[in-house]
Amino acid sequence: MSFRHKLARAAEANRSLLCVGLDPDPARIPGENVASFLCAIVDATSDLVCAYKPNLAFYEQLGEAGYAALRKVLAAIPRDIPTIADAKRGDIAHTAEAYARAIFDQLGFDAATVNPYLGGDAVVPFVERADRGTLIVCRTSNPGAADLQDLSVTTEAGPRPLYQAVAELAKRWDRHGNVGLVTGATYPDEMRVLRELCPEMPFLVPGVGAQQGELARSVQAGLDSRGGGLIINASRAVLYASDGADYVTAARSAAQWLRDEIEQQRLAAQASG
Amino acid sequence: MSFRHKLARAAEANRSLLCVGLDPDPARIPGENVASFLCAIVDATSDLVCAYKPNLAFYEQLGEAGYAALRKVLAAIPRDIPTIADAKRGDIAHTAEAYARAIFDQLGFDAATVNPYLGGDAVVPFVERADRGTLIVCRTSNPGAADLQDLSVTTEAGPRPLYQAVAELAKRWDRHGNVGLVTGATYPDEMRVLRELCPEMPFLVPGVGAQQGELARSVQAGLDSRGGGLIINASRAVLYASDGADYVTAARSAAQWLRDEIEQQRLAAQASG
Repeated sequence: MSFRHKLARAAEANRSLLCVGLDPDPARIPGENVASFLCAIVDATSDLVCAYKPNLAFYEQLGEAGYAALRKVLAAIPRDIPTIADAKRGDIAHTAEAYARAIFDQLGFDAATVNPYLGGDAVVPFVERADRGTLIVCRTSNPGAADLQDLSVTTEAGPRPLYQAVAELAKRWDRHGNVGLVTGATYPDEMRVLRELCPEMPFLVPGVGAQQGELARSVQAGLDSRGGGLIINASRAVLYASDGADYVTAARSAAQWLRDEIEQQRLAAQASG
Repeated sequence: MSFRHKLARAAEANRSLLCVGLDPDPARIPGENVASFLCAIVDATSDLVCAYKPNLAFYEQLGEAGYAALRKVLAAIPRDIPTIADAKRGDIAHTAEAYARAIFDQLGFDAATVNPYLGGDAVVPFVERADRGTLIVCRTSNPGAADLQDLSVTTEAGPRPLYQAVAELAKRWDRHGNVGLVTGATYPDEMRVLRELCPEMPFLVPGVGAQQGELARSVQAGLDSRGGGLIINASRAVLYASDGADYVTAARSAAQWLRDEIEQQRLAAQASG
């Protein structure tokens, strides 16, 4: 089953566009065991999400123990929930092939985030894996994103911000219908433009905090014509919902609130659209 | 000792601007053991290089065994030769901090390559490690590089290719004198422009093959005013110089030829400049 298909089925089964980011921060995890903590979070939320997204940086910072924890977490995720490696890799073709093997074959992820700066041949080794998803980093949610992504570039269709040129490239690279975009929740206006440019692509949306307004505007701006096409990620808001012994129930409550809030905004947007 | 200082000392001691890329390709390694192969290459070349550059993709593709091999290779590199993690990481600040910990603290690298697409706050966690080097991916040597890097962007100083805007940003990010650029050997004209923009920065130059002309033009275009500032990388040309049992002596011969050729071009450029 392809990433797109698996994602759509999980979203429908759990009535959820919520993705939980599994990013271990040892300073905030109660107890010693990173893997047990994350597996408990997965157990408590797997009927509330459309995907899980481990960011590899948080495992790599832990060395061998982090790699072992990532293996355990991936094994604990039910097979019908797709997994996204937030890796933002980008390198020349020969090297990108090795990264694709690392993420898709060694670790068995269903999808990966990829950095577009090295151009088409750096993306091909990911995209040509038609059963997996490739999510191109387009417009991120951090303050420095504007440094490059908002620069005005000259294109055949006239001047436009670099991130829009990246979206156009992503469409050109999408020969197997398995490409999506990463676009931050803090920029719903940008997301609306991207949805017009790429009506069919899934958007991975990081940066959703507890602010209801932000969430509502993101859902309104990013839904596709079928009322889907969004993977809305929350990491710390779910994982560290409580610092205490009740972290499992707190994580479930936080995920449930977010799932329901997204679903309500989705239905409202569909009704008004 | 800082990365810059360590690099200058190794380059002087070995009269070398050559960096050997340690990128294991299991299909091309004689015998079973990746770590033994790479450690033998290091033993045979450590008096001929100014740095070693493992590309993390080639270890990640091997899973746990790759991580163990990377540890062994890093331990085998003499302490006076700087190590560069070719990782091309780039993520928002909180995540970039985790990547910097993974590369500098867990693995102990002296420097890392970093992707600029996410902007300044994604680069800061690397750059603020003043004793380590941060090499910003600027103009790569692959065919698809032009897709983004050559796009004409509007800047205060007028229109210019994106990679030049990245070089200007890299100068702004360089508050501790520890930032350099990655710029491919197949584009010596671009390298010449970058050297004018960034007269003091070290340039990591991948993509050097066996072609003498390419090498000569890269050295001429990239040397700084003191006749240094280049880290010229060769990976496959050294590692897989022979497929047979003589791979160690073949690797040494290839490294020696490249080191001497670079040195000859360096002296010629200094004499004519």
